[in-house]
Amino acid sequence: MKNKLKVIFLGGVGEIGKNMTVLEYGSDIIVVDAGMSFPTGDLPGIDYVLPDMTYLVENKNKVRAIFLTHGHGDHIGALAYLLKDIKAPVYGTKLTLMLADNKLREQKINDAELNVIQPRYSVKAGCFSVEFINVCHSIAGSVALAISTPVGTVVITGDYKIDYTPIAGETMDLHRFAELGKRGVLLLLADSTNIEREGYTMSERTVGETFDELFAKNAERRIIVATFASNVHRIQQILDVSKRYNRKVAFSGRSMLNVIEAATKLGELKYDKKMIADIEKIGNIPDKNLTIISTGSQGEPLSVLTRMAAGSFNKVNIGPNDTIIISASPIPGNERMIYSVINNLYKRGAEVVYSMLERVHVSGHACREEAKLIHSLLKPRFFVPVHGEYRHLIKHKNLAISLGQKEHTIIIPEIGGIIKLDGKSIRKAGIVPSGSLLVDGLGIEDLDSVVLRDRKRIAEDGIIVMVIGINEESGQVTVGPEIISRGFMSKEPETFNNSIRQVVLTTLSGLELKTCPRSEIQAAIRKDLRNFIFKKTKASPMILPFIIQQ
Amino acid sequence: MKNKLKVIFLGGVGEIGKNMTVLEYGSDIIVVDAGMSFPTGDLPGIDYVLPDMTYLVENKNKVRAIFLTHGHGDHIGALAYLLKDIKAPVYGTKLTLMLADNKLREQKINDAELNVIQPRYSVKAGCFSVEFINVCHSIAGSVALAISTPVGTVVITGDYKIDYTPIAGETMDLHRFAELGKRGVLLLLADSTNIEREGYTMSERTVGETFDELFAKNAERRIIVATFASNVHRIQQILDVSKRYNRKVAFSGRSMLNVIEAATKLGELKYDKKMIADIEKIGNIPDKNLTIISTGSQGEPLSVLTRMAAGSFNKVNIGPNDTIIISASPIPGNERMIYSVINNLYKRGAEVVYSMLERVHVSGHACREEAKLIHSLLKPRFFVPVHGEYRHLIKHKNLAISLGQKEHTIIIPEIGGIIKLDGKSIRKAGIVPSGSLLVDGLGIEDLDSVVLRDRKRIAEDGIIVMVIGINEESGQVTVGPEIISRGFMSKEPETFNNSIRQVVLTTLSGLELKTCPRSEIQAAIRKDLRNFIFKKTKASPMILPFIIQQ
Repeated sequence: MKNKLKVIFLGGVGEIGKNMTVLEYGSDIIVVDAGMSFPTGDLPGIDYVLPDMTYLVENKNKVRAIFLTHGHGDHIGALAYLLKDIKAPVYGTKLTLMLADNKLREQKINDAELNVIQPRYSVKAGCFSVEFINVCHSIAGSVALAISTPVGTVVITGDYKIDYTPIAGETMDLHRFAELGKRGVLLLLADSTNIEREGYTMSERTVGETFDELFAKNAERRIIVATFASNVHRIQQILDVSKRYNRKVAFSGRSMLNVIEAATKLGELKYDKKMIADIEKIGNIPDKNLTIISTGSQGEPLSVLTRMAAGSFNKVNIGPNDTIIISASPIPGNERMIYSVINNLYKRGAEVVYSMLERVHVSGHACREEAKLIHSLLKPRFFVPVHGEYRHLIKHKNLAISLGQKEHTIIIPEIGGIIKLDGKSIRKAGIVPSGSLLVDGLGIEDLDSVVLRDRKRIAEDGIIVMVIGINEESGQVTVGPEIISRGFMSKEPETFNNSIRQVVLTTLSGLELKTCPRSEIQAAIRKDLRNFIFKKTKASPMILPFIIQQ
Repeated sequence: MKNKLKVIFLGGVGEIGKNMTVLEYGSDIIVVDAGMSFPTGDLPGIDYVLPDMTYLVENKNKVRAIFLTHGHGDHIGALAYLLKDIKAPVYGTKLTLMLADNKLREQKINDAELNVIQPRYSVKAGCFSVEFINVCHSIAGSVALAISTPVGTVVITGDYKIDYTPIAGETMDLHRFAELGKRGVLLLLADSTNIEREGYTMSERTVGETFDELFAKNAERRIIVATFASNVHRIQQILDVSKRYNRKVAFSGRSMLNVIEAATKLGELKYDKKMIADIEKIGNIPDKNLTIISTGSQGEPLSVLTRMAAGSFNKVNIGPNDTIIISASPIPGNERMIYSVINNLYKRGAEVVYSMLERVHVSGHACREEAKLIHSLLKPRFFVPVHGEYRHLIKHKNLAISLGQKEHTIIIPEIGGIIKLDGKSIRKAGIVPSGSLLVDGLGIEDLDSVVLRDRKRIAEDGIIVMVIGINEESGQVTVGPEIISRGFMSKEPETFNNSIRQVVLTTLSGLELKTCPRSEIQAAIRKDLRNFIFKKTKASPMILPFIIQQ
């Protein structure tokens, strides 16, 4: 009996972020991407979220290689955690690996085996052969993968868009996609992020045209552009337009400086070194001769732009002769933060240009017409939409059907889901341990849902802690009830605490304190107090009674 | 010396929501709108936010009347709280007052003096005369106000759009605006909500055209439409299209039923009673003959649509023969909630249509070209942009300047800010007590920022509570340290609690416990423990030590 190919999704399906896909055949496993995501508002105190990698840890002897499609955090952010448990070579393009290496160093991993691969080259890993194919995206060095397996070719698009006029490097390698399609593709896994958008994503070059207009219009003013540090092509365009308008450029923000250094070293960014100014020494450069490129395009609380807007960034004082260009769109959930930054910049008298007003940003993901082209070139026998919430996956499925793909050849994946294929059939085949690992500070933990529920409850309604000492022999209350509340509101805290004390004493007087177990006393106090407080305030603070039996 | 007119903004400027404007001349005050807003994510546990009304309470003998421009919560939601302290007649259109009355009853206010006014009629209130002028908005019965004052006419647009083909009632009364402009307007306060959007807001009627297409395409399926209960014209259109397609209509959601009842009673909604089905009795109506209109278009956690999507609404089971139309746009901040509902609906096999895909919603606010028309008709001597964040107010100011308004005749207002006018000049003149009252459960409170800071801190990093008993004579530790943590993560809680105990005991051993005051013991424990925990976990839980001195 022949083996089947298993494809397992540890993240990135039915959600945005933490992309991680596993291909397994016989005793060989390869991993494609190792990404993290940022927490939603449901997860107070969580810094980031990783895929559950238990399945890989349990099968670590099978893992032959890890492939990274590009250097964004949602594709490389979990690599350090993966490599703590699994020793396997990592393959990616130059910039991808340099960014990954930065993250590994932060986690004190210095022994990773990182191998640079150029597009159109292939790597053998167990029974798999993995070819890198150039694609366009909002970061340089992005690739799709064409993976030869014993049952056929699997194409994984990674994040992509089709840009016929990219800023640097090649256009998306459509010739190779066409060849692969002609030879026959067994399975396509394709990006669904923008599948709700009609038409084509605009070329990165259109942003440059807007920059040109804005720099002309603001010729006498200082210009500050906030964008993603990793968007090297955007930064190249800002450097180019600054040069045309005779401006020096200063970079600000730690991640910005890191990426600029890496991209410059690799030749991904090209500029005359003389036009770079040190952000510490911009004092005597006239406004009209200076561009500042900074982080903070999402209004992140500690970012340079947010601090500039709040007046707490001592290197740059924002004033009426500044024009700030926010060259990014708000990621859903960040709207309030970024608009608050924009309001603060206006309050300092500055002009602000953002994506609602001008074309200062384009997406890095394919829209519907681009997706149709890729499907049409590859003509895969089987199709699995990835990278998107459930609604995106369904719409991508429907798009494939509209192009002639048969419904039974498409599977909507789920996190942890196993898909089994041979050359002729595809089916769902169970599920592996899966979900989210929550990272809080330095700790990585499969965070107890109870801990999160507690945090949310306290955040909503506060907490009331009390100490009661009881003499076990006499059954007398010897200490307290002493009461402290935090995050709990009441009009007159003193009076209210007194009435809480009365409620607790009444509860205690109804119990046989000499014999009553501690847990029962606590339960009785909780119950009576919860009712009392809810009736008075409609709030349900957490109630924590300490009983000291002496 | 003649009096000046004071205009005071208690809310709705530099922010979205809780609109409340005060006009004062001599011993007369009138209030325009009394709105609330919903909290941002910064305010855990807060249900809604009200303007600080201290200034009105302190001057309550001057308050002659309260005018409501329309029945949305951000214009009427604070009325109950205002009327608790201030007795004054309330004026509004029929639907506005019926909705306001519902809210007053919820707060057990039954003695309010509510007076219905028709557009084009005027009310005297002290030295003011207030005329109602019909405007279009996403709720029926919306008006602008033209207020005659001793120094000139003040026009307040309220929320408006210019709809040449409204669903019911009149178009916006542009003739009256033209007449007012001709006679001379001293001051214009105008809605800035959509000032970033070019062109015109589409007519409400265009949504009806989309409905018609969608009902034709989904002729055999059950259709569920989620929309704002107060959008009576939208609901009228759903009723009309349902009638054309031979469908009965069932309403679901408490606020929906309330508004439908009120609007039907007032004749604002017109339909054949026979086409209404009871949501409890839809079992035998074929899918193709049924439309359900529900609340929940923002993904509100307890709404009907959210419960349907989660499978926890026993009256309606969502399945593959359902098409759900979400006839609303996400209010910024609600995106994640509504997309989660959409994903859940798809998982149940339903089709979902929402504003990203089809024109199933239009805004209720004027875009730039409409604003230009109003400015051009009214030609006010002075202009103050309102209803918007700071960025909107600035852009509205710039729009007015582009139409020829002189910059020195425009003031950007701030919350609590007083503007003083006579017939010839306008200036800022100080500030009154102002800000936000936070309402939590049943309590209204100027919520202590400490309480909120505590809540956020605990939500981020949890709380560690401990009890330590100390014998005052011997200085011995007699109880504990007993430790409980909540919302605090650690890999091995038992081991970790033991090491915390050791840290605390070490701290205590360094103190002279017989004489050391409780507060110093607590401070020492907090300091040592904070350092220890931060070093181990990078978290800063709140630390609450109880010291029992016996």
